[in-house]
Amino acid sequence: MIVGVIGGGQLARMMIPPAVELGIELRVLAENEGSSAGLAATAVGDHRDAATVLAFAAEVDVVTFDHEHVPQDVLAALAAAGIPVRPGADALLAAQDKIVMRQRLEHLGIPVPSWATADDADAVAGFLAAHGGSAIAKTPRGGYDGKGVRVVRDAHDVDDWLAGGTVLLEELVPFRRELAQLVARRPSGEIAVWPVVETVQRDGVCAEVTAPAPGPDLAAAREIGERIAAGLDVTGVLAVELFETADGRLLVNELAMRPHNSGHWTIDGAVTSQFEQHLRAVLDLPLGDPSAREPWSVMVNILGGPAGATIPDRYPAAMAAHPAVRFHDYGKASRPGRKVGHVTSTGSDLDAVLAEARAAARFFDA
Amino acid sequence: MIVGVIGGGQLARMMIPPAVELGIELRVLAENEGSSAGLAATAVGDHRDAATVLAFAAEVDVVTFDHEHVPQDVLAALAAAGIPVRPGADALLAAQDKIVMRQRLEHLGIPVPSWATADDADAVAGFLAAHGGSAIAKTPRGGYDGKGVRVVRDAHDVDDWLAGGTVLLEELVPFRRELAQLVARRPSGEIAVWPVVETVQRDGVCAEVTAPAPGPDLAAAREIGERIAAGLDVTGVLAVELFETADGRLLVNELAMRPHNSGHWTIDGAVTSQFEQHLRAVLDLPLGDPSAREPWSVMVNILGGPAGATIPDRYPAAMAAHPAVRFHDYGKASRPGRKVGHVTSTGSDLDAVLAEARAAARFFDA
Repeated sequence: MIVGVIGGGQLARMMIPPAVELGIELRVLAENEGSSAGLAATAVGDHRDAATVLAFAAEVDVVTFDHEHVPQDVLAALAAAGIPVRPGADALLAAQDKIVMRQRLEHLGIPVPSWATADDADAVAGFLAAHGGSAIAKTPRGGYDGKGVRVVRDAHDVDDWLAGGTVLLEELVPFRRELAQLVARRPSGEIAVWPVVETVQRDGVCAEVTAPAPGPDLAAAREIGERIAAGLDVTGVLAVELFETADGRLLVNELAMRPHNSGHWTIDGAVTSQFEQHLRAVLDLPLGDPSAREPWSVMVNILGGPAGATIPDRYPAAMAAHPAVRFHDYGKASRPGRKVGHVTSTGSDLDAVLAEARAAARFFDA
Repeated sequence: MIVGVIGGGQLARMMIPPAVELGIELRVLAENEGSSAGLAATAVGDHRDAATVLAFAAEVDVVTFDHEHVPQDVLAALAAAGIPVRPGADALLAAQDKIVMRQRLEHLGIPVPSWATADDADAVAGFLAAHGGSAIAKTPRGGYDGKGVRVVRDAHDVDDWLAGGTVLLEELVPFRRELAQLVARRPSGEIAVWPVVETVQRDGVCAEVTAPAPGPDLAAAREIGERIAAGLDVTGVLAVELFETADGRLLVNELAMRPHNSGHWTIDGAVTSQFEQHLRAVLDLPLGDPSAREPWSVMVNILGGPAGATIPDRYPAAMAAHPAVRFHDYGKASRPGRKVGHVTSTGSDLDAVLAEARAAARFFDA
């Protein structure tokens, strides 16, 4: 069994351990030498170039992704060559284009924030007037980790983006907290659902994840995840980012069709991690048990990483202080705000688990 | 941080996942192309050749092992080159030579079976006469998985071995069961001790491991493990194979100074696996928590593997029947009796965990 992964970031990297354990061969098409997933890189090249991708994928059983940026024409070329692509091109489109995503979710009857497209400042003005004078603007494509997202209060706040094309406008949802529902689906239709988690973002970047989300049961999140996975024919892991509004409704914010930061806790906190599950799902193998192994898991991202040091440089102090914490280093060069690793703590007392994960992560502050 | 591992078997392979997670670079000197740990192989060559090993080890921070077969002269050459070797040559000698091992354990006051060396059939006859007419004979070096071990009832039963040198004779211990105590020790002296386990051997090969060993607390096993690790100055993981006699005494049967089959359950069943712990220990990093994550873990070896098929070929059926079982494939060609993978089940009911692990392993019967 050979899985080809396009993209050599930390998501591809974290597929390596379960691939090794399961005896699945992983081949990665990396952007450059020395990528995070470099150990499994069998090719280095541009994922936007069909010839490069076809050559890479010639002998794999299935192609999947570290990111959602592979163009539709490249996906079409893979399909034309008879190479299974999971998730498929049509499903991926809803993760690549936020306007398509909003349209399809509405079609499925999934609750989303009030939204509209805008092609000029007049349209922005109209949306602002209808939504209390403020809105979220998003570029339909290419945004991630807070990039391509802007709060808008003036009709001309996104003139720069409008010069390049249509902008997505959404109501500024007065949310109580953010949640994420991770599910996996295999081509045969089987779906596995992890416990819904609470996520905390800072500057648009995921900072902390608590699994499960504290508070009453959120069966609605599970149902939304299942409906989207089946309705969009997603194969592999699907992450559904959700707003929980002040009045308790759940609205879908974003989708990702790959392992997702909100699921990193599953490596140490779930019977089957999102990375193993993604491999199983894209190979159409039976899905593993997604149950939590302990009452609480907390994951804290390491952003930027220690100044002038690597993450392992800080292990002597961090490991001595936190023998039960799980440490993860993505082998990436440090840049301010860049996700370079994470830590996970698990246990039965939420306050203690939160405190331990946060304390362990602080050893890696820049 | 770069760890060089001599030997490309499944023990080196199972160090890859924690190395990836921790951001530790692993370099493997493999016996041949396509080894079990081939993904991390940076060199292929003979571990008995000092020049080969020195070239491999030139840029690593520490050298450690997949097996104990690196000759003392090669270890001396590494030391002379200033390359840290863990465990060190002197400690390793006690794992390489069973006579040295017996001598040193006796010197430490560790209980062992009654033993003697024999250089001729007369000496064998004398030992047999003194021990009820039967004994275990072992070649001092090179044995593993039941090889180099023989039950002796006649003075001439090991004439072939005596032609090659001294033979170790031991009483045939009337044991109730076999146990294994796994510990890890770092150069600074810190020791971590996993729960003692019960092992079941078939034809001299480990078949099944239950963690912890059922029954009353076995603090004596823990104490023996700690005393041997400190007394022999072991760094890295040490496995102590023990007989529990009918009258409840513990006698040391064998030592291994590397991750060991009796500790494979720790990948899925302990907070810190033996493979991660070995990396931490040889790098002199603080040791991780060795606690069990669940009340019971059972590991069952896959021996030989499915006829005409690979282990992943059986995943569709095995995974569908056992969604919570953890599957491990060593990527090795199948031969009768060869260890090619294992499965682990964990849970709170021992009978259920045992039954599930055994049932899952049966999917891979040859």
